[in-house]
Amino acid sequence: MAVIKVHGIPLSTAAARVIACLNEKGLEFDLIPVDMGSGEHKKEPFLSLSPFGQVPAFEDGDLKLFESRAITKYIAQEYGDKGTPLLASGKEMAIVSVWMEVEAHQYDPVAMKLAWELALKPHFGMQVDDAVVAENEEKLGKVLDIYEARLSVSKYLGGDVFTLADLHHLPTLSYLMNTQAKKLFEPRPKVSAWVADIFSRPAWRKFLELRDQK
Amino acid sequence: MAVIKVHGIPLSTAAARVIACLNEKGLEFDLIPVDMGSGEHKKEPFLSLSPFGQVPAFEDGDLKLFESRAITKYIAQEYGDKGTPLLASGKEMAIVSVWMEVEAHQYDPVAMKLAWELALKPHFGMQVDDAVVAENEEKLGKVLDIYEARLSVSKYLGGDVFTLADLHHLPTLSYLMNTQAKKLFEPRPKVSAWVADIFSRPAWRKFLELRDQK
Repeated sequence: MAVIKVHGIPLSTAAARVIACLNEKGLEFDLIPVDMGSGEHKKEPFLSLSPFGQVPAFEDGDLKLFESRAITKYIAQEYGDKGTPLLASGKEMAIVSVWMEVEAHQYDPVAMKLAWELALKPHFGMQVDDAVVAENEEKLGKVLDIYEARLSVSKYLGGDVFTLADLHHLPTLSYLMNTQAKKLFEPRPKVSAWVADIFSRPAWRKFLELRDQK
Repeated sequence: MAVIKVHGIPLSTAAARVIACLNEKGLEFDLIPVDMGSGEHKKEPFLSLSPFGQVPAFEDGDLKLFESRAITKYIAQEYGDKGTPLLASGKEMAIVSVWMEVEAHQYDPVAMKLAWELALKPHFGMQVDDAVVAENEEKLGKVLDIYEARLSVSKYLGGDVFTLADLHHLPTLSYLMNTQAKKLFEPRPKVSAWVADIFSRPAWRKFLELRDQK
């Protein structure tokens, strides 16, 4: 049994973020499934690991964490000497932090609404809300305009190298690129090249193999 | 003229977060007002500093940042040897990070909706939406139940000392405690003691003097 445990399912974008990060670091872990269909994440003992009842919960020996972006930061710092660096230092780290916040506050709320409507609702046989789709496609287009400008001066969002600022986008991007929302990416060449680049990372392909096996 | 510049207004909770952090560090800065009423934040030259058109924008010499929580992290790290530490290290920092993410994802979206309805809309002479208030009061109550449990085992959210995880709450708390939402805090003794403690900090009182002068 590995020292690191991730409680969650690969379909969860937040759990996927943590697994992608562990893969970048080449770390072994146990994925402990949480039966979200029966509401296991809203009951004890899961709530003792993640009091807001959200996956993933994370354990590294005695340390117990929740909130996916706090978990990835911990992994990147604690295992700084393993695998891909994923962080920077000093003023370069400040720029990485800006784009990590952009992912969390500008991109993710919009991308998650679209992923829910266009990828997950059809998967669960639920009716898509066209008004929500239209509103959020317009919003995502505006966000991607700013990404296009950023990626015209910098290969990755946080700077010249791949960092957590890029990695945190992978799970939602992976859903969106299999839906009609793909049309928002195609006319933006720098964004498209960035998506292709980060999708091709071995650590992400390893995650997809895990997700598709489940 | 100070080396550090904050572009924004003290009424903005995001700008307030950055100013409170600078005060904790005892750093001098210039506050450069942004005329949000005329939409100055949605036009150049402001957009070159903050491409999503949100205050605050921040400059420290040549370094230009946006996103308030990235700015506070930069200040806390870059000026680590000045004033209040605001961060931790190793596994303790991982716990601080968890509660910084909780503020951003669990508390702030709900608190901001209530601050808008109950404090800012009346300030601007706009009609309050009672349904939004009721929905978000219920949500905030559930968040504060988890805070009450956390603050029963730890003096501050991130651990035994005041950190950014606490500081980031101050601007919205300051609005909410002057509204009917105060009733959500009063029955929760640990949360109430925590609010009183962080409100009493000299750095926060210094910010309030600045806000009330404007």
